[in-house]
Amino acid sequence: MIVDQVTDLPRPPQRPASGHKGTFGRTMLIGGSRGMGGAISLSGMGALRSGAGLVYLVIPKGIADVVAGHSPSYLTIPLPEDDSGRISSITYADLKSQLKDKDSLGLGPGCGQSDHLKELFRNILLHEEKPIVVDADALNMLADMLDVLHEGPVPRVLTPHPGEFSRLANLPIKTIDKHRQQVAAEFADVYDVTLILKGEKTIVTDGHRMYVNPTGNSGMATGGTGDVLTGIISGLLAQGMLAFEAAQLGTYLHGLSGDLAAQELSQPGMISSDLPRYLGKAWQQFYALHDSGKG
Amino acid sequence: MIVDQVTDLPRPPQRPASGHKGTFGRTMLIGGSRGMGGAISLSGMGALRSGAGLVYLVIPKGIADVVAGHSPSYLTIPLPEDDSGRISSITYADLKSQLKDKDSLGLGPGCGQSDHLKELFRNILLHEEKPIVVDADALNMLADMLDVLHEGPVPRVLTPHPGEFSRLANLPIKTIDKHRQQVAAEFADVYDVTLILKGEKTIVTDGHRMYVNPTGNSGMATGGTGDVLTGIISGLLAQGMLAFEAAQLGTYLHGLSGDLAAQELSQPGMISSDLPRYLGKAWQQFYALHDSGKG
Amino acid sequence: MIVDQVTDLPRPPQRPASGHKGTFGRTMLIGGSRGMGGAISLSGMGALRSGAGLVYLVIPKGIADVVAGHSPSYLTIPLPEDDSGRISSITYADLKSQLKDKDSLGLGPGCGQSDHLKELFRNILLHEEKPIVVDADALNMLADMLDVLHEGPVPRVLTPHPGEFSRLANLPIKTIDKHRQQVAAEFADVYDVTLILKGEKTIVTDGHRMYVNPTGNSGMATGGTGDVLTGIISGLLAQGMLAFEAAQLGTYLHGLSGDLAAQELSQPGMISSDLPRYLGKAWQQFYALHDSGKG
Amino acid sequence: MIVDQVTDLPRPPQRPASGHKGTFGRTMLIGGSRGMGGAISLSGMGALRSGAGLVYLVIPKGIADVVAGHSPSYLTIPLPEDDSGRISSITYADLKSQLKDKDSLGLGPGCGQSDHLKELFRNILLHEEKPIVVDADALNMLADMLDVLHEGPVPRVLTPHPGEFSRLANLPIKTIDKHRQQVAAEFADVYDVTLILKGEKTIVTDGHRMYVNPTGNSGMATGGTGDVLTGIISGLLAQGMLAFEAAQLGTYLHGLSGDLAAQELSQPGMISSDLPRYLGKAWQQFYALHDSGKG
Repeated sequence: MIVDQVTDLPRPPQRPASGHKGTFGRTMLIGGSRGMGGAISLSGMGALRSGAGLVYLVIPKGIADVVAGHSPSYLTIPLPEDDSGRISSITYADLKSQLKDKDSLGLGPGCGQSDHLKELFRNILLHEEKPIVVDADALNMLADMLDVLHEGPVPRVLTPHPGEFSRLANLPIKTIDKHRQQVAAEFADVYDVTLILKGEKTIVTDGHRMYVNPTGNSGMATGGTGDVLTGIISGLLAQGMLAFEAAQLGTYLHGLSGDLAAQELSQPGMISSDLPRYLGKAWQQFYALHDSGKG
Repeated sequence: MIVDQVTDLPRPPQRPASGHKGTFGRTMLIGGSRGMGGAISLSGMGALRSGAGLVYLVIPKGIADVVAGHSPSYLTIPLPEDDSGRISSITYADLKSQLKDKDSLGLGPGCGQSDHLKELFRNILLHEEKPIVVDADALNMLADMLDVLHEGPVPRVLTPHPGEFSRLANLPIKTIDKHRQQVAAEFADVYDVTLILKGEKTIVTDGHRMYVNPTGNSGMATGGTGDVLTGIISGLLAQGMLAFEAAQLGTYLHGLSGDLAAQELSQPGMISSDLPRYLGKAWQQFYALHDSGKG
Repeated sequence: MIVDQVTDLPRPPQRPASGHKGTFGRTMLIGGSRGMGGAISLSGMGALRSGAGLVYLVIPKGIADVVAGHSPSYLTIPLPEDDSGRISSITYADLKSQLKDKDSLGLGPGCGQSDHLKELFRNILLHEEKPIVVDADALNMLADMLDVLHEGPVPRVLTPHPGEFSRLANLPIKTIDKHRQQVAAEFADVYDVTLILKGEKTIVTDGHRMYVNPTGNSGMATGGTGDVLTGIISGLLAQGMLAFEAAQLGTYLHGLSGDLAAQELSQPGMISSDLPRYLGKAWQQFYALHDSGKG
Repeated sequence: MIVDQVTDLPRPPQRPASGHKGTFGRTMLIGGSRGMGGAISLSGMGALRSGAGLVYLVIPKGIADVVAGHSPSYLTIPLPEDDSGRISSITYADLKSQLKDKDSLGLGPGCGQSDHLKELFRNILLHEEKPIVVDADALNMLADMLDVLHEGPVPRVLTPHPGEFSRLANLPIKTIDKHRQQVAAEFADVYDVTLILKGEKTIVTDGHRMYVNPTGNSGMATGGTGDVLTGIISGLLAQGMLAFEAAQLGTYLHGLSGDLAAQELSQPGMISSDLPRYLGKAWQQFYALHDSGKG
C-alpha cells in the first residue's frame, strides 16, 4: 500500500455570487441526549460557520429548548425520547422523508448509546448514499457493525480519537500511538472511508493519501471541541466537497480556530464554544494565506 | 408600463429628540413553530435594531421560552398550538384587540403552514389596513389567495426569493431569473404591492419604481437571514416610512450588515444571527455616507 | 414652593476595599409576567451593574427559566402565578421573611396588573420602610391608591413617563408637557417622593430640588430601557444612597450608557439590552469626569 | 506552629502537546437549586476556563435547562429534586459509579441546605479520597460535621468568607477579622485542609504555609464570584495540582480576572459572569509575568 503524503490544502467550496441557501447545501446532524445537549449544539454552530446553507439538528425532545436556545440560526427537529433522554421510537423509515433533500449527515455528537440508536444509524449508514460523518457515540456503536461500511465507496468520514479508534480497529492504543499513520491508512483502505485520527498531530487519510494537520494545540483537549469538528466537516460536505478534502480542510480550519482562540485566551483559558466564534477569523486567515479566492 | 430606476436611498425615519416608545412605533410579528423558534426570534432582533419603539412576537406557546430567551428586549404573546407546534385555535377576532394599536405587522417567519394559519392570515390581510410584510410560509400560503391583495392600495410588502415568487406568480424560476425586473414590476403593479425579489442583486419594486440593491453577498445565503430582513422592514414601517421606501432602506441596511459581517467573519463564516449584531454599524455607515441627518 | 436647581452629581456609593456582598447591599425586584420576562431580567441586569452586592428577582414561576437564563449572576424567587401568568396567591405576609434583610426594593417591571398584585404592592408600600422604586404597571396601580404614599417621608422613587404621570397626577399630558418641572415638583412635594419624570430631558425632583439630566438620547425610546433604569436605581439605593441622589446618579448613568451605545450602534440600532453592557463604561467615564474617587 | 509566608506562585499544570481531554482531568461539581441555577453554572464556567478537560455539573432536574443553557461546553447530570428544588433522593451509593473516574469534586455552589444533601456530602467527604473543594452551603452544613475532615490528609479545600468561617471554626467574626492568619492556619492545621479565607486580602493556608493573595478588588463583592472560584480550583485540582498550590493559583487567577474586568467595566459595573470571560486574559498575563512556560 502506497500512501501519498499530502501537504497542500484543497480549494474551499465555490461561493457563486448568485448562490442561495440551497446552493450551499443542507446538512442534518443527529445527536444530543439528556445532559448532553451542548454537544449537538456545538456541532450545529460549527456547521453554520462552515458555510452550509441550512443546518438541521435532529434531537430528543427533552433537550429541544436548550439546543434551540444556543442559536437561532439552525433548525431543530425534536423526536421522542427514551427514559434516559436519548432519541427513541422513530425509525429510519420515519426519518426518510426528512433525510431526502439533505446533502450531508453527521451522526453521534452527544447521542448516547442504545439499541434503538444503533439500529437507526445502521440503517442510515446502509441505505443513505450521501456523505456522512460518524463521530462520538455513533463511532462506538459502529465498532460492532463495521460491515455497514462495506457497501462500496460511499463517502463516509470517521473522526475517532485514539480510544475510539482502538475500539473500531480492535487494536491496543499503544499500537495505534506507535503506528498512527499506518494503522489509520490500513483501516481507511479496508473500509473505504476517510479517517480522521485525532491527537497531537491529527491525521486525515483515505488509505491512499495522508495529511498531517499542522494546526491545533492542547488547549483544544477540552469537552466539545470534537463536536465542533463534526459540524464543520458535515457543513463542508453539504457544500459539495469530497470526503477527503472536506476532512482535510475541516481539520485545518478547526485547529486554526483553536490557535486563534489560544492566542487571545491562552490554552487552559479557551473552551469549545470559542471555536465557532473564531471560525470566521480562521476562514479569513485561510483565504489570505492560501489565496484561494472566495468563489 | 414605465418603471423608473431609483438609485437614491430614502431619508430614514425622523428621530425627534422628544420621541418616546410610541413615537417610534409598535410592530407585531407573527410566526414561529416547533423547531423554528429561531426564525421569529431573528425577525424580532431585526425589528428591534431597525429603531422600532416596541416589538411584539406572536408565537405558539411551545416555543415561548426559547424565543423569549433569545432577547429580553422584545415582548412575546404565546398562543395555543396544534399538534405540530404551529399557532392554532386563536382567530382573527380574538387577535383584533392586540392588533389595534400596532403600527405594522410582519407575517410568516418560521410559522409553518396550516389551514388555520391560512385563514388567520387571510383575515388579517383582508381587514387590517396597516402596513404588513408577508414572508416565508405566509408567502407560500398567500399563493393560493392572491385575491386578498386586491383590496386596494394598502401597504403590503412581499419578500419572496425566486422559488417563493415562482409559486406566487405561477411562473417558472427560469423565466423569473431571466426577466427579474419585468416580472417583479408586473406582479407589483397588478397586485398593488411592494415586492422584494431576493437574489444576487435583490430588487425592490412597486411596479412604478425599481431599486437594485447594491449591498449584500453570498455569505448571506444561510438560514435565517430573510427573517432578519422581515423584521427590519416591519420595524421601519412602524416608524412611519412608506412601503417602497421601507423596503428599499431595509434591504440596503440588511445587505450592508451582511457585508460588514463578512469583512470580519468571511462569507462562509458569517451566520444570520450576526446580522442584527452588525446592524448598528450599518446604520452608522448609512448616516455617514448619506449624510441624511438623524432627526 | 422654592425649588433649587441642582446641577452637581452626588458622590457615588463608597466602595471600601474591605467590602463584601453585604456591604454593597441586597436589592429585590418584583415583576415579570407571561410574555414580559425580559422586563424584569433587564431590571436585574441594571441592578447588578449598578454595584449592588446581591440582586433577587421575584417572578411568577412560568417565566422562571427564561429570566434565570438571561443571567447567572442574579438569584430568582419563583412564585405561583394566575391564569395570565402574573404573580399570584402569595401575600405580603408570606413574603415578609424574604423582604426582611433586603436593603431596597423595585416594584413593577413587566408585572402586569391584577387585584392581587395591587394588594401586594399596597401592603409593601404601606409597611416597608426601606427605599422602594415604583415603576411601570406598579405605577399604574399606584394611581388608585396614592394614599399609601402619605405614610411619612420613607424613601420612595417613582419613575413615570408622561403617560404614567398623567394617570398618577390626574393631569392631562399637555399640561404635564408644558409645565414639567412645576407639576413634577408639586407632586413630589405633596406625596413626599422622589419623582423621575422621563422625557427628552428627564427631570428628577423631590419637591425641593430639581435636576435636569443632561445625558440620554431618543435611541433609548425603545422597549425595556425604563426597566434597566429601575434596576440601576434600586441597586444604588441598596448601596445606601439617599433617594434623590440615587435617582439623580441612576438617571445620569442610564443616559450615559445610552449615549455610549448610540455612539457605536446608532440611535435606531441600539436596544435596551445594550444599556447594561455599556453601564461599566459609563461608570468609568463618570469616575474620570467627576473625579469622585472610587472608595 | 511555624507558618511560612509564601509569595511565589506555583507552576501551572503541565500542558503536554500530546494531551487529550483525559490528560487535563475530569471535575464534577455538585450544586444548584431552584432560583440558584446561576451559581453552579458560574462554577462550571470557571472550571472550564481553568483548563480542565471535562466538566460535569450534578444538579436538580428542575434547573437542568437553565444550567445547560448557560454553556454548551459542560455536561449536566440532572437528579431528582425535593419540593424546594434541591437535589434529593439520590444517595452516595447511587452516585458512586459517576464519581469513580472523576479527578476532583466541588461541592456546594447554590445547592441550598437539607438533611439529604448533608448526608450525601458527608458520605462523599468520608469516602472519596480525591481532591474536593467545599464551598457555600456545603460549608455551612460541614460546620455540623467537622469530624469528616479528620479522616487523614486527603486533599480538601475549604473556601469560606468570614461569616462561613465563623460557623466552621465557632469563632466570632471579630476574632477572625483581627487574627485572620492565625485562626486560619490553626484551623487548617487541625483539620488537615487547605483553607481559603476570603476578604480584602484573601489568604490561603494549609497550616504550614501562608499565601496572601495580591489580586482582586471590591468590585468582586457581588453575587456569584465565589462560585467561579470554586470552579477554577476544582478544575486546577483535576489537572493534578496539589491542594495548596491549586488554591493559591486559583485565588490569584480569580482575583486577576476581577482586576482586568474592573479595568474595563469599573468596580461597581462588573459582575460575576465577567470573571470567566476575563479568565483567559488573566492566564495570558500570568504566563507573561511569571514566565512559567505553558507545558
